[in-house]
Amino acid sequence: MPTLEQLKQEICDIGKRLYQRGFAAANDGNITYRVSDNEVLCTPTMHSKGFLKPEDICLIDIQGNQLAGAKKRSSEALLHLEIMKARSDVRSVVHCHPPYATAFAVAREAVPSCVLPEVEVFLGNVPIARYETPSTQAFAETILPFVHQSNVVMLANHGTVSFGETVERAYWWTEILDAHCRILLLAKQIGRVEFLSPQHTRELIDLKKKWGYADPRQDSAYADADLFADDVFRASWAECGVHAGAFGAPAWSRAAAQCNQKPSAGPLPSFDEEAFIERVAQRVAQKLQASMSHDASH
Amino acid sequence: MPTLEQLKQEICDIGKRLYQRGFAAANDGNITYRVSDNEVLCTPTMHSKGFLKPEDICLIDIQGNQLAGAKKRSSEALLHLEIMKARSDVRSVVHCHPPYATAFAVAREAVPSCVLPEVEVFLGNVPIARYETPSTQAFAETILPFVHQSNVVMLANHGTVSFGETVERAYWWTEILDAHCRILLLAKQIGRVEFLSPQHTRELIDLKKKWGYADPRQDSAYADADLFADDVFRASWAECGVHAGAFGAPAWSRAAAQCNQKPSAGPLPSFDEEAFIERVAQRVAQKLQASMSHDASH
Amino acid sequence: MPTLEQLKQEICDIGKRLYQRGFAAANDGNITYRVSDNEVLCTPTMHSKGFLKPEDICLIDIQGNQLAGAKKRSSEALLHLEIMKARSDVRSVVHCHPPYATAFAVAREAVPSCVLPEVEVFLGNVPIARYETPSTQAFAETILPFVHQSNVVMLANHGTVSFGETVERAYWWTEILDAHCRILLLAKQIGRVEFLSPQHTRELIDLKKKWGYADPRQDSAYADADLFADDVFRASWAECGVHAGAFGAPAWSRAAAQCNQKPSAGPLPSFDEEAFIERVAQRVAQKLQASMSHDASH
Amino acid sequence: MPTLEQLKQEICDIGKRLYQRGFAAANDGNITYRVSDNEVLCTPTMHSKGFLKPEDICLIDIQGNQLAGAKKRSSEALLHLEIMKARSDVRSVVHCHPPYATAFAVAREAVPSCVLPEVEVFLGNVPIARYETPSTQAFAETILPFVHQSNVVMLANHGTVSFGETVERAYWWTEILDAHCRILLLAKQIGRVEFLSPQHTRELIDLKKKWGYADPRQDSAYADADLFADDVFRASWAECGVHAGAFGAPAWSRAAAQCNQKPSAGPLPSFDEEAFIERVAQRVAQKLQASMSHDASH
Repeated sequence: MPTLEQLKQEICDIGKRLYQRGFAAANDGNITYRVSDNEVLCTPTMHSKGFLKPEDICLIDIQGNQLAGAKKRSSEALLHLEIMKARSDVRSVVHCHPPYATAFAVAREAVPSCVLPEVEVFLGNVPIARYETPSTQAFAETILPFVHQSNVVMLANHGTVSFGETVERAYWWTEILDAHCRILLLAKQIGRVEFLSPQHTRELIDLKKKWGYADPRQDSAYADADLFADDVFRASWAECGVHAGAFGAPAWSRAAAQCNQKPSAGPLPSFDEEAFIERVAQRVAQKLQASMSHDASH
Repeated sequence: MPTLEQLKQEICDIGKRLYQRGFAAANDGNITYRVSDNEVLCTPTMHSKGFLKPEDICLIDIQGNQLAGAKKRSSEALLHLEIMKARSDVRSVVHCHPPYATAFAVAREAVPSCVLPEVEVFLGNVPIARYETPSTQAFAETILPFVHQSNVVMLANHGTVSFGETVERAYWWTEILDAHCRILLLAKQIGRVEFLSPQHTRELIDLKKKWGYADPRQDSAYADADLFADDVFRASWAECGVHAGAFGAPAWSRAAAQCNQKPSAGPLPSFDEEAFIERVAQRVAQKLQASMSHDASH
Repeated sequence: MPTLEQLKQEICDIGKRLYQRGFAAANDGNITYRVSDNEVLCTPTMHSKGFLKPEDICLIDIQGNQLAGAKKRSSEALLHLEIMKARSDVRSVVHCHPPYATAFAVAREAVPSCVLPEVEVFLGNVPIARYETPSTQAFAETILPFVHQSNVVMLANHGTVSFGETVERAYWWTEILDAHCRILLLAKQIGRVEFLSPQHTRELIDLKKKWGYADPRQDSAYADADLFADDVFRASWAECGVHAGAFGAPAWSRAAAQCNQKPSAGPLPSFDEEAFIERVAQRVAQKLQASMSHDASH
Repeated sequence: MPTLEQLKQEICDIGKRLYQRGFAAANDGNITYRVSDNEVLCTPTMHSKGFLKPEDICLIDIQGNQLAGAKKRSSEALLHLEIMKARSDVRSVVHCHPPYATAFAVAREAVPSCVLPEVEVFLGNVPIARYETPSTQAFAETILPFVHQSNVVMLANHGTVSFGETVERAYWWTEILDAHCRILLLAKQIGRVEFLSPQHTRELIDLKKKWGYADPRQDSAYADADLFADDVFRASWAECGVHAGAFGAPAWSRAAAQCNQKPSAGPLPSFDEEAFIERVAQRVAQKLQASMSHDASH
């Protein structure tokens, strides 16, 4: 078990990593670590995550009351504490605004799975929690429907939150998610996203089991489910205003019928083919008539 | 109150942050800090903001005359001083060219609000000042219509300027604005920008009040205004050549009727249909005449 | 010959470079160096590549058995060892997920050659290996068909692997590939990719020979081949599900007939030309018949 | 005058800056500094620019012969020396592959001017030199037509080269150019590029004169020229295969008639109109003949 000082330093180190990656502008983002059943280290409010010192880190109780620290705890601590209450295995929570993942959260677009093996193993399907005003208890609770089925949750029109047994692990899931969202967007700009086969996806879900990573698709509740991301969290989409399909879907998935792979350069959204054909035909007819009249007059 | 040496060091530190974020190529950008009613620290001209030392920082008076420092003050100091004269609460001004925000300034596209809660709380609606030739008094005065209603102003075809009670705070608003513009553009590339509801927007404006952040929409002058960004600065748009609508508008806003959400792949903007039809028709006529002549000669 | 300690330090240094470039999120990526016929240094599993210390580096044998080191070797070591077994000149292998190259691997789009001279000299044509579940022997062997003809291989829906005589050289090919893929995508967004002439390409292939860089197009087997990237690895494309043409092809290449230059706002990706022509022709015929019947009835 | 050791250190420092900005993958890029009429410091070949030490820097004569240094000079030195021979005021040359500017060079798209005031003042119109195989004398001479009218030249399908009185100044013009190209591309993705008025452009050209920066548009040879970028280098475009118009043109410019402002979803740039018209015409002719034969047989 690391000392309190080491833990505070790790929070500062991960804060710096997060800031340098562009995941937290200005005072954005917050990091917590549970040091005992009722004591949680928490980053202070109105402080850049890139320039924290151990003495800046607050100590709060599991209800969010400040126990120690010269600076005031982040107003987002309630979100972190809800996750810790629901998941006894979670010691650390990281909340921030990574640009690519947050863009998905602003578009409210489901992040497709079955694309990259590491992402499938470490993240799997990624839920999107509905929007509520930050710093409120109602906001803190938006993640509860998903907290047992994922270690990372996208927050609609807001950002991301991820959690794990250490500060670095909690941060890792965010780093993977943002890299994944970036690659998806770039692949779409190239022309398409290709998906893994169901067999290859199944092999990854089996690998997760072997390596000790939970995945809802290992549960009997999803025994008949489509392996593609959509099934696990689909029921929650209507409430969160989630769209799906901007990146296509595997041909083998039921989702393929509902969403078309749409490359970046879309198919003539406003080109009126019918009007155009009519104009071509009229013009040709005019030309020919003029030409035949001319011929006839000779 | 920090010492002059500490303030100079803070200007250098924020200069480095700004340079590393890619907000200031070459010698771009300038930073000021008001140390007394008539004394202002100012970064020197023709110097990279990423590699400043405290001895590089000039001291000028409120009219822009150099009081101390081996290097010449930035030619953009007049802009900073106009802001300080208009806003007694402002101690520091940061001007630079953050890439995403400057792209909005070059497209002269209004930055939509009601998207991300932190942006709504710290920035709210963002004005765009009309273009004038830099380093002139006329340029310095372009921000005056907006300086009481915002802590950050976009400068058409130029960049951004933000201001606050410390150098770091002044910088923060730029960092938030650029991160926001980046996320907007990425969301558009994914397929759409989703907006907050009027109730959620109102909750954020109330939160700002509680936390001590001013917003024009808290004023009685805007009591009947549309909560969406457009209302506060709309009157200024014609003069600045501002467009709006590239990122859509909330369905509940009056602006929704005026601008269509346009996905990244637009509709054939410059395909010359008329010329094309003419060429098709001429070619068809040629073919048919050739074919008929051929038939006739047999 | 550097000491073991120096080699471990170089692995850490390149790991840091790779992490800072955004080529390896979380614990992504792995690096190896062959110190003798049967001894290979290898990065540990579940460790960020950006924060390695020499004592973290494992020693394994050429079959992948761990010989020394407190931490467990990466599960991807098998891929590295297959390359070393096949290529006696290779001492170091770097595997990671550079964003632009990985986006090509996710789109399974062939990276066009004949664009930038340095890329032609150091990389030439870049193969794409078919997808297999990582950490398996079957995965390790996917690169075998390409390992003698290239120093960098793209891994479908996965990432990249590159190799050379030192850790830095092995890393360089990845850095060049990702920079190239980024420039290609940006050029496509500007409007097009322009290609080198066959003579200029031939000059580069000759330069490679002079400078000691192998290129399959120097072999007699490819004496009659199209100089454009497609020929060397085209036979492998069907198995890997590779597409080509999103970035166009030189007009002088046979590939030009098969793929159209498709800028970001692509030319009608879903426009059915054949159906369209048929409709135009039918309409014209109708018009003319109607017009001739009308003429005839007078 | 700085010492040789200081100059070598400055080359290393700017090399690091250039590498960290992503302007030089692997061993890309090279930097020179003229220390006397016949002695030039030059970065070594096959060395990352991000990790140079002063002892790595070579000394060469003005013909490119190595005078001192354990490492071999860059093969691109000839390009640098041609610039120094042509411009006695130039002491330093920087060549690299900044991603956004290189993308313009790969698309061979003219960089529009009259957009951002700092860019107009420090760069003005930017020429594109035609492609030649690197490391040859023919390549070195491609920049000669432009070297007196600009401090930065884009190299078609290659990269950029910029030059000035110090290493940092030489580098600055590259940093400005790449930032400008990035902002242009982002503005295009937002929806459009807006241009300065002729009067505002004229004010900037006058400001350049006052501040001692040359601009061809200050010369009497261009007294009647369109102030927009096109005029100064337009004559060279055909030879270099340069396109223009992807970013539009000011409405007040003659170029506006020739190029349409093209938003991100561009207008069918590679749609083969001619082939398409031919196919339409042939099909129509077939239909009509079949129809006429049918009529005739009745």
